[in-house]
Amino acid sequence: MQSIEFYRSQFLDYLKRHEHTKEPKNLYEPITYILGLGGKRLRPVLTLLSAEIFGCDYRKALDAALAVETFHNFSLVHDDIMDDAPLRRGKTTVHEKWDINTGILSGDAMLITAYQLFENYDGDTFKNLAKLFSKTALEVCEGQQYDIDFEDRDDVTLPEYLKMIEYKTAVLVAAALQMGGIVAKASEGEQKLIYDFGLNLGIAFQLQDDYLDAFGDPETFGKQVGGDIIENKKTYLYLNALELGSAEQKKELRDMYSIQPKDPSAKVDTIKEIFKDSGSAEKTQEAIAEYTEKAFSVLAKLKISEDKKAILESFGNSLMMRQV
Amino acid sequence: MQSIEFYRSQFLDYLKRHEHTKEPKNLYEPITYILGLGGKRLRPVLTLLSAEIFGCDYRKALDAALAVETFHNFSLVHDDIMDDAPLRRGKTTVHEKWDINTGILSGDAMLITAYQLFENYDGDTFKNLAKLFSKTALEVCEGQQYDIDFEDRDDVTLPEYLKMIEYKTAVLVAAALQMGGIVAKASEGEQKLIYDFGLNLGIAFQLQDDYLDAFGDPETFGKQVGGDIIENKKTYLYLNALELGSAEQKKELRDMYSIQPKDPSAKVDTIKEIFKDSGSAEKTQEAIAEYTEKAFSVLAKLKISEDKKAILESFGNSLMMRQV
Repeated sequence: MQSIEFYRSQFLDYLKRHEHTKEPKNLYEPITYILGLGGKRLRPVLTLLSAEIFGCDYRKALDAALAVETFHNFSLVHDDIMDDAPLRRGKTTVHEKWDINTGILSGDAMLITAYQLFENYDGDTFKNLAKLFSKTALEVCEGQQYDIDFEDRDDVTLPEYLKMIEYKTAVLVAAALQMGGIVAKASEGEQKLIYDFGLNLGIAFQLQDDYLDAFGDPETFGKQVGGDIIENKKTYLYLNALELGSAEQKKELRDMYSIQPKDPSAKVDTIKEIFKDSGSAEKTQEAIAEYTEKAFSVLAKLKISEDKKAILESFGNSLMMRQV
Repeated sequence: MQSIEFYRSQFLDYLKRHEHTKEPKNLYEPITYILGLGGKRLRPVLTLLSAEIFGCDYRKALDAALAVETFHNFSLVHDDIMDDAPLRRGKTTVHEKWDINTGILSGDAMLITAYQLFENYDGDTFKNLAKLFSKTALEVCEGQQYDIDFEDRDDVTLPEYLKMIEYKTAVLVAAALQMGGIVAKASEGEQKLIYDFGLNLGIAFQLQDDYLDAFGDPETFGKQVGGDIIENKKTYLYLNALELGSAEQKKELRDMYSIQPKDPSAKVDTIKEIFKDSGSAEKTQEAIAEYTEKAFSVLAKLKISEDKKAILESFGNSLMMRQV
């Protein structure tokens, strides 16, 4: 077993070797562009790591890892169109640099090339990878749709919200890990366990993202602190405050979430106070801890050596140890 | 063997049985809508027909047929966004009835569900279907990109144009036929032949569409006659006229293709004259005949009974016997 950093650099080498802009250029250049923008490469690294954990050379998992990363970037290209986002990883988004039509069509091509990467595996492995991939990809679409639907709804429940972040974010982390298991031909039971590890860790990660968006350290949190509040986004913090708060707190929260003041700092401060006073901030921290523990408790059941478990644990910890 | 009409009605029954709008509704309702809009169902019928021709019960090919039809409709939904088209088969397009974001996301989900339909086949058949599907789908994207690129180019060559229509239209007709062969476990040689039959017929069909767009009977041609000319579309007729015409004809053609008069009837008439006088109309009819004959000559090589060949021939003829 090697370090996370080792797998990341191996993946980046492979990505680089795979880079060749075919014709028509206007279809393939945006793909090279978005895949080259960087990011933590979390998902493909998990696929490589998981393959090795189940006793398979990580190099056999490189195509599956690239499929996962290609799909992830496909979803970013199409989501950025839907969100009208000008920037991604600090660079111009595809539909801004080219145009919306290019974003749609290059995205489509990415989804298809992701499937093609599985063709390098034998029949059964191919089918298992493609099946998991399709199921996951459809869930990601459903999660995105729920996210859009929630913007116009005032009655979103906590279970609905949890399902949305599970589909939109966690299932791909889980699938990335299971794909390593599929390539390594791990048993179905082991595959299920590593999937559940990823699923719970993915939910914990997204809830933490909600928490840090309000309470994170502006120095270390990558995004604008208070961004969700400014955009009136119905996060776990918001939905819990509506559940736990007093009648007065709920009313103020709803009122505040109907305005978009030019200088949002007073609004952000007031809402953060409500998140704390209502008990929502604490409840969110508890939920993060619960999902993280659930992820780690799954690890205990895996039939792999203790040093391999330690690697997954340390990976999980490093992910969850951001400045809360 | 049954009639084309029989396979069409069996396919429509299957489509109907498959219709169930899952949650989230905003993702799945547009899919039910576009798949229900009608059309000739040419591609899925070809898949069923091909399966029976190679000695397999058409019912085994229903999932592959539905995958082909789902992919075709996915490409219509995304193309209609790119072309800003308000109508499809006389009804409101998805992005007009809902919005662009819904069109993008529901389209994505259709592409994924098309792959899922192959999961009902065994490992090897699954892989063969998915491989052909991915290759074809990517070519369709490339064809669409070439079509977009050609709008801004003044130096499109005839081979480039032929490649564009091959990718954008013909490969899916060819793949629909080959998929029937894959399901029927026909030999690779036979699969290649039926693919080539579809490819040549598909090119002939598209060239005929170009021809009828200018010279078709307004009573029987489904679209507005002269539509390509009005939109300054660089069709086979146009590119050949630029190749074959006199210096004067070329100049007039280029001049006419730089304007969009309010009343286009004089422009349409002038350009049709140039298409005829330059020899382009005749050359186009020759090309249609050539590709049709090429398709039929492939049939002769297929190791299937004469009555089965006759069905394919009569299908090809009915497709090419539109009012020229």
